[in-house]
Amino acid sequence: MTIAADTRLVTDRDLSDFGAAILIQVGVPADEAREITDNLIQADLRDVESHGVVRLPIYVQRLAVGAINPRPRIRTVRETPSSAVVDGDNGMGQLVGIRAMQIAIDKARSGMCVFVSVRNSNHYGAAASYAQMASSQDMIGLSFTIGGINHMVPWGGAEGRLGNNPFAVAIPAGAERAVVLDMACSVAARGKIIVAAKEGTPIPPDWAVGPDGQPTTDAVEALKGFVQPVGGPKGYALTMTIGLLSTMLSGAAFGSEVTHMYDDLEHPQNIGHLFGVLPVSLFEDIDVFRRRMDQAVGEMRNARRAPGVERIYVPGEREEISLAHRRRHGIPIGVGVLAELNELGARYGLQLASAEHPLRP
Amino acid sequence: MTIAADTRLVTDRDLSDFGAAILIQVGVPADEAREITDNLIQADLRDVESHGVVRLPIYVQRLAVGAINPRPRIRTVRETPSSAVVDGDNGMGQLVGIRAMQIAIDKARSGMCVFVSVRNSNHYGAAASYAQMASSQDMIGLSFTIGGINHMVPWGGAEGRLGNNPFAVAIPAGAERAVVLDMACSVAARGKIIVAAKEGTPIPPDWAVGPDGQPTTDAVEALKGFVQPVGGPKGYALTMTIGLLSTMLSGAAFGSEVTHMYDDLEHPQNIGHLFGVLPVSLFEDIDVFRRRMDQAVGEMRNARRAPGVERIYVPGEREEISLAHRRRHGIPIGVGVLAELNELGARYGLQLASAEHPLRP
Repeated sequence: MTIAADTRLVTDRDLSDFGAAILIQVGVPADEAREITDNLIQADLRDVESHGVVRLPIYVQRLAVGAINPRPRIRTVRETPSSAVVDGDNGMGQLVGIRAMQIAIDKARSGMCVFVSVRNSNHYGAAASYAQMASSQDMIGLSFTIGGINHMVPWGGAEGRLGNNPFAVAIPAGAERAVVLDMACSVAARGKIIVAAKEGTPIPPDWAVGPDGQPTTDAVEALKGFVQPVGGPKGYALTMTIGLLSTMLSGAAFGSEVTHMYDDLEHPQNIGHLFGVLPVSLFEDIDVFRRRMDQAVGEMRNARRAPGVERIYVPGEREEISLAHRRRHGIPIGVGVLAELNELGARYGLQLASAEHPLRP
Repeated sequence: MTIAADTRLVTDRDLSDFGAAILIQVGVPADEAREITDNLIQADLRDVESHGVVRLPIYVQRLAVGAINPRPRIRTVRETPSSAVVDGDNGMGQLVGIRAMQIAIDKARSGMCVFVSVRNSNHYGAAASYAQMASSQDMIGLSFTIGGINHMVPWGGAEGRLGNNPFAVAIPAGAERAVVLDMACSVAARGKIIVAAKEGTPIPPDWAVGPDGQPTTDAVEALKGFVQPVGGPKGYALTMTIGLLSTMLSGAAFGSEVTHMYDDLEHPQNIGHLFGVLPVSLFEDIDVFRRRMDQAVGEMRNARRAPGVERIYVPGEREEISLAHRRRHGIPIGVGVLAELNELGARYGLQLASAEHPLRP
């Protein structure tokens, strides 16, 4: 496990206490504050920092000004035995996501493939966390969301109309861990372009287009523009499809209806999600399924390796290894993020307990 | 519509008559021969030649030697109101795919989200064609399959364990055409590497790895090796996930169980698929859905364009424009493919009617 030098180790417990305490101060009920924070920290534990506590400041800011509802009445507005439409009442995306996926799982228990669409939600963090709720119950879980910022253009366009929309699929196994796909549709995360801009280094030509829609290697121009889709038109088609699946079945915002999560604090975002659950037992004997999944995972891991490759991972495996390691040894948080969290905490009379510990890798 | 110089125009009708006549001679019942051929030709009409009549010779070869069953008894072996498992009895993939997706649509009509898994099928051609069966009925259609050749390695590997697995999603609209995503997981089609090898030109370093698993720009080495996944580990995770979804819910072949469609004519392939159907009306009023889909499509098409871009297309739009054009003006077939088709036809006393017509673009 490599850890950047400019980090400090924080325990998941301390991080959870800190996050929950702040959420409570902006009006979130205690139990729900803990659920939301633990979802964020799960991402940090899994080495998916982009959806972890780094998002706490913007969430708290939106909650504080009323752009997110701290005490939503999440309700099912339409349902059948194999479907539901959930209105999140502008609650935190993590809370709405957990409730909606739980509805899907509960319905699926009666022997159904179930899809639940969601409207009036917010940024829900890591797509995988919801899919994994299903895979831990011997069900295949699917999780789609529209992003909270229009960072992408339609292929050939020069206008942000699409989010960098993520989706996740989690497939349970037997002795092996679940196989978990979680991907968004850009070649590179926007965070990497921010780093390049700060350092004054050029970026590869396939990472971004400038505000005119043309590829650029200038990171500063790129930040005024848009991230490029993976595989060109493939990534465009994929992000559009994920966006439509996440919004058209519930009345959530799409395209020009999507406001900017960071720049527009006045309006609720009406973010949409779609969750799907396929109970394995409807299709295959669970023992057979588990054995075959274990075999499939083993075949990947034990395949002949390219020169210089030490280990082959299956999707989601690195993240689970990170989770186990970080639970024991702490979560490395960048000093910049730590400073931001403590600045946020100071406003609520809180400090992150282990923040000043030096790095012990 | 640009057409390569070394092609001849053939009408879809002539192509259909030719294909069906050959399939009948290798034992396929007349009605089913027509269904299969029309599925292939739909791909040619949609400018997706890789899944069109170019596949007829290998299909016929496999049928002739008994590696594909020309008269399968396709049957549902397990079912619930929202699921089914279909055994294709080693029939043609197109026939099995059409039957299985029809089962999903019929079940969905009673107000269910439905998934149908399939085993003992064969290469099913264009994933989109099945998804579109659903979208034409105001349902969202999903279509996954495992590929018929292990052309890809697990990320970091040097051994073919994964197909270049495709999937499709079709989302109906109102006045606009359905939005249709159909993608496989490689950066570039293997066919492009074959062309480069014939022409002796180098290929970009992200297209393929050699037999040792390391990136190569040598097209000949690349053909001994494997195609690279789009977005590196993202494409690997995606193709593995599509492969697992397509096989683990039905008992179809995965990984080392997958035999080579072209090189191994002795064994049935036991190809697996997964089809999904979400009826729009379970989630949203169909009129609202249609209006919003039309608006979403319009927003993409009418977005400000990058310099030099004449038109922005939504996913699946180019293919539908091609289909309308080629229905009227004929399908351009490469002279190499034509020669191969006529060589095949000669064995069955058939010639492709319009084959010798010169190109009229």
